[in-house]
Amino acid sequence: MCERKEREAGKTFMPKFDDKGLLTAVVVHHETSAILMVGFMDAEALAATLETGFAHFHSRSRGKLWKKGETSGHVLEVRQTLVDCDQDALVLSCLPAGPTCHTGAQSCFYRVLDDGILQPVKA
Amino acid sequence: MCERKEREAGKTFMPKFDDKGLLTAVVVHHETSAILMVGFMDAEALAATLETGFAHFHSRSRGKLWKKGETSGHVLEVRQTLVDCDQDALVLSCLPAGPTCHTGAQSCFYRVLDDGILQPVKA
Repeated sequence: MCERKEREAGKTFMPKFDDKGLLTAVVVHHETSAILMVGFMDAEALAATLETGFAHFHSRSRGKLWKKGETSGHVLEVRQTLVDCDQDALVLSCLPAGPTCHTGAQSCFYRVLDDGILQPVKA
Repeated sequence: MCERKEREAGKTFMPKFDDKGLLTAVVVHHETSAILMVGFMDAEALAATLETGFAHFHSRSRGKLWKKGETSGHVLEVRQTLVDCDQDALVLSCLPAGPTCHTGAQSCFYRVLDDGILQPVKA
């Protein structure tokens, strides 16, 4: 099987990091399916996530490994990991220990773009 | 209001592109909330999306604007756009005209990582 075929159709997990060594991780709530946040993982963050069962990311601004909730306590317990066709994006289905957003919102996606203006998402 | 505060709490849409001029766009199905794909948008793709109501991305491999479905016909009609706290990620809630993945799957996330092995997602 050629590499592309194996990557798309195979059973082998072969995460594809970009030229900065990152892939995209979308966090959804395991019970509600709401999208909670988007982060980036390098190989270290991915390994830490798989090893511990708690979501870790690579902070692009701080340039280092970051366990989500390491300060706030609002960790994300990973219950399921989905992988996309070319293996450069993951969906982490998680049980959050508290609000996911640093603003205190349950999700980072608390606003909707409405005719060019941001409005609060209606519950 | 300082720029960070305005970005996080304000009504002004001020999309934050990374050093490659890209932000992350997560596509979800407007009716089922299933995550369909993850793509990247530059300012051109974002403008085309907002102007036409159909999802456009920037192809990182081809280095150019890409209207999703331009070849397959499987366009994504954007019904709602959510914006995250620091405005560097969007959720596009879409009605898909066909399977979203180029493999023919409804979603690009058709596999789950199970003990190190990729398995088909159970419906």
